[in-house]
This record gives sequence, C-alpha cells and structure tokens, in this order.
Amino acid sequence: MRTIKWTDCEGELAADWKHCKVVLIDQTKLPNEEVYIETSDYTRIAEAIKRLSIRGAPAIGVAAAFGVALAGLQSNSTDPTRFLEEIDEAMKVLGATRPTAVNLFWALNRMKKVAHGNPELDVNALKKALKKEADDIASEELEMSRLMGQFGSELINDGDSILTHCNAGALATVDYGTALAPILFAHKRGKKIHVYADETRPLLQGARLTTWELAKNNIPVTLISDNMAGYMMKQGKIDKIIVGADRIAANGDVANKIGTYSVAVLAKAHEIPFYVAAPISTIDISLSDGSKIPIEERSAEEITHFAGARVAPEGIGVANPAFDVTPNQLITGIITDKGVLGPPFDTAIAKIFDRREAISAS
Amino acid sequence: MRTIKWTDCEGELAADWKHCKVVLIDQTKLPNEEVYIETSDYTRIAEAIKRLSIRGAPAIGVAAAFGVALAGLQSNSTDPTRFLEEIDEAMKVLGATRPTAVNLFWALNRMKKVAHGNPELDVNALKKALKKEADDIASEELEMSRLMGQFGSELINDGDSILTHCNAGALATVDYGTALAPILFAHKRGKKIHVYADETRPLLQGARLTTWELAKNNIPVTLISDNMAGYMMKQGKIDKIIVGADRIAANGDVANKIGTYSVAVLAKAHEIPFYVAAPISTIDISLSDGSKIPIEERSAEEITHFAGARVAPEGIGVANPAFDVTPNQLITGIITDKGVLGPPFDTAIAKIFDRREAISAS
Repeated sequence: MRTIKWTDCEGELAADWKHCKVVLIDQTKLPNEEVYIETSDYTRIAEAIKRLSIRGAPAIGVAAAFGVALAGLQSNSTDPTRFLEEIDEAMKVLGATRPTAVNLFWALNRMKKVAHGNPELDVNALKKALKKEADDIASEELEMSRLMGQFGSELINDGDSILTHCNAGALATVDYGTALAPILFAHKRGKKIHVYADETRPLLQGARLTTWELAKNNIPVTLISDNMAGYMMKQGKIDKIIVGADRIAANGDVANKIGTYSVAVLAKAHEIPFYVAAPISTIDISLSDGSKIPIEERSAEEITHFAGARVAPEGIGVANPAFDVTPNQLITGIITDKGVLGPPFDTAIAKIFDRREAISAS
Repeated sequence: MRTIKWTDCEGELAADWKHCKVVLIDQTKLPNEEVYIETSDYTRIAEAIKRLSIRGAPAIGVAAAFGVALAGLQSNSTDPTRFLEEIDEAMKVLGATRPTAVNLFWALNRMKKVAHGNPELDVNALKKALKKEADDIASEELEMSRLMGQFGSELINDGDSILTHCNAGALATVDYGTALAPILFAHKRGKKIHVYADETRPLLQGARLTTWELAKNNIPVTLISDNMAGYMMKQGKIDKIIVGADRIAANGDVANKIGTYSVAVLAKAHEIPFYVAAPISTIDISLSDGSKIPIEERSAEEITHFAGARVAPEGIGVANPAFDVTPNQLITGIITDKGVLGPPFDTAIAKIFDRREAISAS
C-alpha cells in the first residue's frame, strides 16, 4: 500500500507535468472510509500535514518533498530567480506545519539544496531536478523501510506478542512502516506473531490505523486502551515492544508519540525489550540530547471533544503535548536501515554519521 | 452534592413509604447534562449500576442497599416468608451487576443480615428495618468520606500538584469522595492545590466527572490523556498521586480502575508518593492477596466505538478489563476512615479488623 504517490504525471518533459497531482490517503477518515486527497496545490499538502491527513515522521518528510516539487511543477515562472522565490515560499509554508518530526526539515533541506545548488539550470531543468529529488526521497524511504523490516524481523521470535504504540506502519511511511515493518517481514517469513495495539489517545492512530493495517495483512491484533499496557505486561502477555520515532537525538534519546515514554518505563519495570524503529533520516545529529527536541503542543479540543461532541466541561485546563521524549537508557535497541544499533547509542550513532560524512566527502 | 437519595419518602409509617423513590444523578450524561434517574423499581437501580449511571465502589454499595430497601417498600406481601423471597430475589439481581467492587457485596450482606436476622418482625417492621439499614450505610459512607478527607488532607502540602485517575469523588460515594475528599478538605483549609486528572479511557470518568467536580469546587484542574501521566511525572509536575479503590485484599493489594497499576509503576520510577483512599468497607479481608480479586471484563464496544461512532475496524481483537491490581509494594499509604495505613499493609489491615472483631464481639 503506497501512502503517497503521483497521478496524471506521465511524459518526459517538464511541460507535461503541469497536470501532475499528488494523491494521498486521508488518514483522518480511516478506518471507516478510504478517502484520497488528490491535489495540484502544495498548500493543500501543507494543510494535510497539519491536520494529520498524512502523519508519521517519514511520510511527513516525503509529503513535504512532494509539496515542494508540486509547487515547482505548477509554477508559471520562466525566470529562475522568481521561480526560486516561489520554491522558497512553498518550503516556508510546508516547514511551518509541524515542529517535532525531523524528517520534515531533513526532506526540505534536500529539496533546498537541489533548488539552490544548481544555478546553471533553467526553470524546466530545475522542475525535473526537484521532482527527481522528491521521488528519490520516496524511493529511499521505501528502501529504508524494507531494510528496517529485514533487520528488525530477526529480533522477532516465532510466537512473540509485540506491543506497539501509535501507528508506525505503512501509513506513516511510503510503505511497510518503521515499527510495523519488522512485524510484517517476520509474518511474511511464517513467524506467528500477535500484536497488542495501544489505541493512542487523543487521535487514536493505534485504534484507527495500526489495527486496520495489521488486519489487512492478516496479522492477529488486540486493541487496548493506553492505560492497559502496564497490566498486559504484568500478566506476561507482552514479549517485546517496538515503536517508531519522530526525532532521535545524537545520544539516542527518542521523541515519539505521547505515551511512548510511559510504555518505555513500564517495559523497563517488567524487563521487556523496548525497541525503536526509525530510518537514519530520523536522527538529528545536531541535537546532543532529547531535551533539545521541540515538542508540539496541539489544541485542547483534541482532548475535550470527541467526534465533535464535548466530553469534558468548559473552562478547565488541558495539556496536549503530541510527543514525549524517551531517554536512551530505557531503549534496548534502535532498528535502522543500517542495522540494529545497541547501547551506548551516542557511539553507535556517531559511527554511522562519521561513515556518511566520510562517504559524502570522498 | 448528594449522589443518591430518597424522594417522596415522608412519614413515619412503612405504609407511607409506598411512594418512596430513589433519585440518583445519571453519570453517563455528565458533564453535558445533569439528568436524574428517579425510580421506585429496584431493577432500574440494578440497570443503573450495570450501565455505570452510578459507579464508584462506595456509591455502588449504597445504591445496592437502597435498591434492596426499595424492593421491600414496594412489596405487597404481608407474609414474611414471601416478603423475604422478594428481598432475596432483589439481592440476587443487584448482586449480579458488577463483580469487582467489594462494597456491593458488603452492603448486600448487611441488608441480608437485617432481612434474615429478625424473624420476630412483621413485614412492616422489616420494611422499616431495611430502609434504616440502607440509610445507615449511606450515613456511614458519608462519615467515612469525611474522615478520609480529614486524615488525607494532612498529607497534602500547600502548593501540591496531585494526579488522580478515574473518578473517586463525590459522584463515586455519597458525597466528598474517597481520593478527592483529601483534596477537597485541603482546599477548604486554604491550601493551594493543582490537580492533574487522567481522562481514564475507555469511559472517560476523569474527563467527564473528576474535572466537573473539581471545577464546581473551584479547584484548578488540568485534564490529560492517560498516556501523558508518565511524561508529566518526568517533568516534575506531579508531587503526589491519590486514587480510589474498588477492592483491597488483606495484604493491601488494590484493585482499581484499569490504568491505576501503570500509574503506580510510573510513580515508583519517579519516586512520587502513591496513595490509595478507600473506606474500610472496601477492604476484603477474605482475600489474602490481589490475585484473587475478580476483574470485570466489559464489552469490546467501549473501546471500538465512541458516542455511537466506530473508531476501530471490524473483526479485530479487543481487551477491555475494567480494573487492574496494584501490588502493595507500589503503595505509599492507604487513606482510610480509620487513619492512614502504612506498610507493611497486611499487619496494618489485620490490626484494624482485629479491633473491629473485638468490638463486635464485645
């Protein structure tokens, strides 16, 4: 299942791409309706990110890249300077959607380098280059999910019961997922797996999306409310935990959906392995630790209302941080597209990035 | 605010009490509507308990006692044997509503003793005795809440931020509450308190009821989803935790609303005092430890649906235990109407019950 793709985008010439549209599944409508957003307007992509029609760190990055490419393809400018102003504006709008997932800024940065790093290109060539970069980002994310699936599936034993929080599946990526990729690959290899899915308040990504994906893949799943996770662990029903990540600091501290930290503390107390699955693009090497990761605070209505109906009295205080930070010492391993990292995570992460720098310098 | 009371119940003669009705606030409608159930039919009381129109261990006990008394007052039997058959039937129906809260069985047992322990009484005298016993249970519960409020408020410092889970307030008792009573009394004594209320999935007693009660009493409250509690603790926002209880075993293990166990583990990990507030009537001295407490499993629809709308796909597995058990070693103190018990809880509880037995034997 592809979360985001192009449509009406045939032909070899940039002029043919005026009709290109981006298609993405509207995740706010799942599981009751399978509705797709089809748009040639990058501001609609920004809106989709903001409203969580598309969410999950890798998917947000790809959507932002597609948004920038779309802004380019739709441009009527023939003057490169004016064209680049339009691209910069699109990047500004797309970059202001959500603050926590680093993949968003990572993807926009790659698009920016292409836009501003090729002064020799005319507008049509720039359009082609931008679309190619967006497609490359999507292909690379897809390949990263595949690799996480392969590496991670080796950690899973036949008969394992695995708890996951929020949705880090195909819907959160281009396909396969981050946390769900190892489960999917282990299942394909014939391992019997049972998944416990935290419903994940307030927006119920676990109830709505994770169970939907797993059921589609015929993987047995039991939905629980977030506050049941500890009790399930105590009863010995959970063998392993795998979650995704929205940003990982250089020391391995992990920002992920609110509630992840509680799950990690509970896992430690019950001596259950706690894995994070994320591509290297989720690691923000510029932040020494998790305390520096900006945490998005979302609107009170997500807590006080449900499907339009008020469930809490007016005038009370509400906290609604969308993410929390899990310190590295609570993490057993980080499943990446470069393999499974173990503690000490600062060293393991530094090694990967040194290697990348060495490669890009050579 | 009285959660449950009589209406149209004047006069001194049992014959006058044919018009008696029980009035209780329908908690499923809060906070949007203040609707009262007024009934002369004990099966309607049983239904109200089952559907959580009235909930909370002490309130369930009182409602059951009122239900038995109501069955008696409504009876047309003049033959004591036939009358007692009707009472026994009412006790059976009321006893089959919810399995976990011991107060239900404790209250029904007291009513049974009055019904069957007075063979010298005629039907009218039995009616009076049953109504008196129900009223006594309510008065005693009220007094217990007052005492828990007094004892517990001494544990609260000026400026404390207190986390609570579910609703253990006036609505869960006759008035004042169990966990909320100390907060209410400390607030009345001028201590500045801030409460964090877990919304408490699936039925949102925290969002709907606890915030409503606290706001009514002008106590500042911040509503959070259950999965935020750990993150709030990590940020140093929680000084103490107070929760209620549905049943406490002889060793101090506590059955309470699902999610309580997770909060207790998180409290331990963050070295935050974790208190349980419950009247002595919640202690089930017949159970050596918490593993023997029956845990009610409720319907999957409470998780898969919200306000009638489906939020999870069809055909998936769902777990919905309504309670969990917190082992005594995670508990700092149990606030009772006899004072605050500290570890070792088995000894502290045995002392109280030995004293009670000594008193009732004398």
